Amino acid sequence: MDEASAELPDLAPTFRARLPSDLPATGAWQPGDQRGDRQFFVFGGDRRFALEMGGSLPVLTIAYETWGELNTDASNAVLVCHALTGDSHAAGPMSSGHLTEGWWNDFVGPGRYVDTDRYFVVCANVLGGCQGSTGPASVNPDTGRRYGADFPVVTVRDVVRTQQRLADHLGIARWHTVVGGSMGGMQALEWSVMYPDRLRSMIVLASTAAASPQQIAHSAVGRLAIAADPRFRGGEYYDAKPGEGPGAGLMVARQIAQITYRTDETFARRFGRKTVDPLENFGVWGRFEVESYLDHHGQKLVRRFDANSYIILNRLMDLHDVGRGRGGTRRALANVRVPALAVTISSDALYPPRQQRELVYDLRANGVQCEYEVVDSPEGHDGFLLEHDSIGPILADFLATV
Amino acid sequence: MDEASAELPDLAPTFRARLPSDLPATGAWQPGDQRGDRQFFVFGGDRRFALEMGGSLPVLTIAYETWGELNTDASNAVLVCHALTGDSHAAGPMSSGHLTEGWWNDFVGPGRYVDTDRYFVVCANVLGGCQGSTGPASVNPDTGRRYGADFPVVTVRDVVRTQQRLADHLGIARWHTVVGGSMGGMQALEWSVMYPDRLRSMIVLASTAAASPQQIAHSAVGRLAIAADPRFRGGEYYDAKPGEGPGAGLMVARQIAQITYRTDETFARRFGRKTVDPLENFGVWGRFEVESYLDHHGQKLVRRFDANSYIILNRLMDLHDVGRGRGGTRRALANVRVPALAVTISSDALYPPRQQRELVYDLRANGVQCEYEVVDSPEGHDGFLLEHDSIGPILADFLATV
Repeated sequence: MDEASAELPDLAPTFRARLPSDLPATGAWQPGDQRGDRQFFVFGGDRRFALEMGGSLPVLTIAYETWGELNTDASNAVLVCHALTGDSHAAGPMSSGHLTEGWWNDFVGPGRYVDTDRYFVVCANVLGGCQGSTGPASVNPDTGRRYGADFPVVTVRDVVRTQQRLADHLGIARWHTVVGGSMGGMQALEWSVMYPDRLRSMIVLASTAAASPQQIAHSAVGRLAIAADPRFRGGEYYDAKPGEGPGAGLMVARQIAQITYRTDETFARRFGRKTVDPLENFGVWGRFEVESYLDHHGQKLVRRFDANSYIILNRLMDLHDVGRGRGGTRRALANVRVPALAVTISSDALYPPRQQRELVYDLRANGVQCEYEVVDSPEGHDGFLLEHDSIGPILADFLATV
Repeated sequence: MDEASAELPDLAPTFRARLPSDLPATGAWQPGDQRGDRQFFVFGGDRRFALEMGGSLPVLTIAYETWGELNTDASNAVLVCHALTGDSHAAGPMSSGHLTEGWWNDFVGPGRYVDTDRYFVVCANVLGGCQGSTGPASVNPDTGRRYGADFPVVTVRDVVRTQQRLADHLGIARWHTVVGGSMGGMQALEWSVMYPDRLRSMIVLASTAAASPQQIAHSAVGRLAIAADPRFRGGEYYDAKPGEGPGAGLMVARQIAQITYRTDETFARRFGRKTVDPLENFGVWGRFEVESYLDHHGQKLVRRFDANSYIILNRLMDLHDVGRGRGGTRRALANVRVPALAVTISSDALYPPRQQRELVYDLRANGVQCEYEVVDSPEGHDGFLLEHDSIGPILADFLATV
């Protein structure tokens, strides 16, 4: 759901889960460590930013990155929206501020499908995140302490409102397109409903008009795994020493999610039933290769993500429902007035093609010109990150016709 | 995967996961509390029971129940094999020794599909379980202490060998059929390979010839959730006070599994996006109905299951591979010499129809007369427990033709 997860475990983790003391507690992620080459847009100091579910924030920082040049009439701006554990680093190499290379590096860049020689591409870390934008680890100016458990519920609509303020700041009256996959697709969809005059097209990949109860269920179990970690301390763990945060709970949550991002077919092809430990005298905590893969992904996320943000952003996705307070999905989508492209992955079990089909149907019922592409791929939900050679040309063609 | 999980939450749990202190630590399950109306077969005192993955057990108890009467030539005996969290109580009401009614109550009984007026039905709690058979909570005669973390890896083949000893004990030279779903199906399959002369037919429901890497992945995350619970103490928690065992970890593990047992379609029909807490000012720990459902199922399992058994039996399923040490699946199945029936649930995402199709194909390639039925149902994996009116007649017809 975030960085391409296709590579084989490269860290050969020696982790054994046998004893809790062997579990990673927290990783390299520490509050205040998210600078790198991001830019920061700060706003709201004059007037509090009210939130959809109640409450408000006194001041907001949105961390963002840009690629390419904004043209003179500001008509070539593309907003790329990231998924759950993504951040502003859609493109570019690993660097001091970025523990991974750009999560959409194969899509975005000079001469690539979203061509930064042609487009001015913007990607912002979402409100509630942990990579430079205001989130649970930020210091609350009202109290002088980090928000922690006091961080309020934020919704996709709140996130989109922060992005609209960022667009103003950057002088972008109208995006050429707003594009995103998974949680990013939720943002693209809300953009087209909330600010129909401020974009010329939208692209939704591997996403939905409303989170389904199964999606909420996966999200809930991940939250519970974190809450059940005593080191989570109800979200008030920022004074913990390095290594004493809720890394074990976050690791479990990530592994639950990681399974839903891929498919049995890809696991079968890569791992089959191969074991890391010899099958002779295989122990209770002996490991199959697929277990090693999950450990690797769990540990990797723990190093770069904040448990509170994980909870806040899962909640945000649960609450995603474009029809809420608007008379239902169909009526909400009547606001959409721009051409749309919906792309789904044939093997996506988490955001199944059915959901996107329904979305396309509802958009077309409202007269929206909506293209629909099913990419045939065994990669599952993560296909929207991995299948650049199939999805890339579809995006490029669509962008060229807008 | 165990008791029918179709009823709506009846406990209206008030559980909030916000603080770890609110989490259930352990439930009613306590070692030594599994008597009820079970019978106990004890063996091995004279000679240790060697295990497939190494090690041995000095003495074994197998808890079992029977229904109906064994006929004079002992030709009407049916062995019912239970799934992961099932036990010997396949049929019958809730009682002092049984916190739930029979897990296959709609299938097994007088005049029912597996008719106990006609058949002598036997169901035994598996080795490694926690409902009367020898398992991690049993006292190890070698040390005088409960096995805990020292309990060895057991495999489906070990379980079947204990059942073969039970058959001897009961005077059953040949089962009319051996039948089971999910983990129970693994046992039926191994029976037909290991003891082809000791059964006249076999029935496999919602199962597989070998655990797939995705199944192993789900199992692994559940194990990790338990191991990450500090109250698990590496498996040495039997001296904990009631309420201080690894219930939180087991609850997370159960919820992960519960999602895989059902489908988004059933969740959508039962819960949709309805919330327990009002959507206005919905909090980070506010609950959707599907979350309440998961909490209910998690709490229910914690009350009746031992975390160490959960780990041991998940490991057993990971290791299920009928072809191991036998030159692969196809060659292993050459041993099967009885008619077979395979039943799969159309919407089963955990043991998808593809796996059963492959099994049927391999059986038929070996000349086995194998019927194959796909039951059209939205219930997912749990369909093998719930769809009695569709599956029951298929079983009854097959049993009648053997």
